[in-house]
Amino acid sequence: MDPSLVKIPAMKDLTIDNITENVIRINSLCPDERMKYILERLVTHLHDFARETRLSTEEWMTGLRFLTEVGKICTDVRQEFILLSDILGLSLLVDSIDHPKPAGSTEGTVLGPFHTHEAEELAPGAAMSHDPNGQPLLVVCTIKDTAGHPVSDAKIDIWETDSTGHYDVQYPDHDGPDGRCIMRSDADGVFWFHAITPVPYPIPHDGPVGKLLKLLGRHPYRPSHMHFMFEKEGFDHLITALYLRNDPYETSDAVFGVKDSLVVDIGTAGPELAAKYNVPEDHACLTYDFVLVSDEETSALRARNSKEALDRLGRKVRIVNGLPVPDLD
Amino acid sequence: MDPSLVKIPAMKDLTIDNITENVIRINSLCPDERMKYILERLVTHLHDFARETRLSTEEWMTGLRFLTEVGKICTDVRQEFILLSDILGLSLLVDSIDHPKPAGSTEGTVLGPFHTHEAEELAPGAAMSHDPNGQPLLVVCTIKDTAGHPVSDAKIDIWETDSTGHYDVQYPDHDGPDGRCIMRSDADGVFWFHAITPVPYPIPHDGPVGKLLKLLGRHPYRPSHMHFMFEKEGFDHLITALYLRNDPYETSDAVFGVKDSLVVDIGTAGPELAAKYNVPEDHACLTYDFVLVSDEETSALRARNSKEALDRLGRKVRIVNGLPVPDLD
Repeated sequence: MDPSLVKIPAMKDLTIDNITENVIRINSLCPDERMKYILERLVTHLHDFARETRLSTEEWMTGLRFLTEVGKICTDVRQEFILLSDILGLSLLVDSIDHPKPAGSTEGTVLGPFHTHEAEELAPGAAMSHDPNGQPLLVVCTIKDTAGHPVSDAKIDIWETDSTGHYDVQYPDHDGPDGRCIMRSDADGVFWFHAITPVPYPIPHDGPVGKLLKLLGRHPYRPSHMHFMFEKEGFDHLITALYLRNDPYETSDAVFGVKDSLVVDIGTAGPELAAKYNVPEDHACLTYDFVLVSDEETSALRARNSKEALDRLGRKVRIVNGLPVPDLD
Repeated sequence: MDPSLVKIPAMKDLTIDNITENVIRINSLCPDERMKYILERLVTHLHDFARETRLSTEEWMTGLRFLTEVGKICTDVRQEFILLSDILGLSLLVDSIDHPKPAGSTEGTVLGPFHTHEAEELAPGAAMSHDPNGQPLLVVCTIKDTAGHPVSDAKIDIWETDSTGHYDVQYPDHDGPDGRCIMRSDADGVFWFHAITPVPYPIPHDGPVGKLLKLLGRHPYRPSHMHFMFEKEGFDHLITALYLRNDPYETSDAVFGVKDSLVVDIGTAGPELAAKYNVPEDHACLTYDFVLVSDEETSALRARNSKEALDRLGRKVRIVNGLPVPDLD
């Protein structure tokens, strides 16, 4: 490269105190405003972290070796960096920021590493789990919009473990989906199916993230839950899950997924549902009414939340392509 | 695991605002005080970063994919995470914190990725570069302690590129060290050798870090320099380098290594050195007086700097094994 093309601002004599402003200055020619802002905040926090901990060379090297191991163990079917983000609460935080929910709508939560694209669409009332040892569970749900109107023909992805706490893909010899399905809501916004009562299970903890949890004195368990993902044109993509009340891990989920509004009780079908869905009255039954938010409402709420949060931090921003950048005018 | 063993503090209903305190709370049983403090600061900064940027799910995933690529490209001879740390100014910052230098001593700088353990010890006055196209350079240095006494029998590791800007190990067919050597200081603290005048060169930029530099509008070059590493019982390990004044990249080093006190002029030997070291008077010559700091002085200064920096931040700490942890009493 021709040195005369070096246009970046001069810096020299770098110290503990001026290194941050110098790195930000050298990055200041980044043509992408949003990327420049992200890097500015990243460098500031990374440096403040080192300054506040007085990070030693040995600790820094331990950290870099850990990140290298996390990268090395990643494969097409195992994303250890997502797992790391999950156990640090970052995944839940990013989802909450990106998919804000107005009062009365269904909250989102972490996707987790076991969603696949293998699930088949099943007819209403079908069985999505074939584990003979699972406790049979009837699931009856509705989907509405925030105005209370039924949302029909939504695509719903549903997945859960078997009765031993393992997803189908965790079995080396698995040859097709089980414990997962795709459903469509009917004209009344209803979808229903037969499943098994969820059980707690550990996240994969045989890698570097598992080692970290152990060093932190934490367990790798998730409380019993069933995953749901909703797609419908015009509505914000909703990734969520329902958690069983009083699960032993309800208040210590390894990946911070539990929200009060997503905690449910499993009851029995009772006379009405028993008659309608052809099960005994004492059959275990889970009912839930999901509320989806329109894309428009989500965008507006996301932008408003961003503006308010950054105002509170005293940062002047403008929203470009839905995301904040510093307002320098 | 037996759920009754779950002792971690309860948390639930996680939101954008309370997720950080909840993650810190769940980590609070970590038996290692220092690790707990590091994780507390890490989680706080990671979350603040996401909150201040309003990080989107897509950006988060881009970041995780980037880190995965950085991990994947690492090998025994390529450490892309160190390179990433270098170009974000973190490596220089950590070195500055961990190896504080009292006024008058030689400052440290980044190690860089090209130090090896292959170098052979050469006799005083030997040639450490055999590149016929390099500009011959006589290097004459002294090592003193902070009281001005010569430091004899120090082990000095020295390395530089050839005249094309490549280290020996960057040649696939390299079969032995060149452009690097180990020297020992004599009874007067002197070491001297024949080298070539350093030239600028790019850091490895064919991987994810190179891609990042490009997106940031930055070049991958380092200004001309020669590396020095000093080891001597009782003295703090010194990793440093000397930079040539007026190098085109002097004020835009891709890895933030340049400090004023390490910038040197290359002069000529002149009558005295010419006679003493048997070179023509107009032979290019670099002289430098290095000053090493004792382990004791370094430890005391590191602890004092930590205490002062954290006092300024309003954090009460005590120093355990040389490193700060919160003082909760």
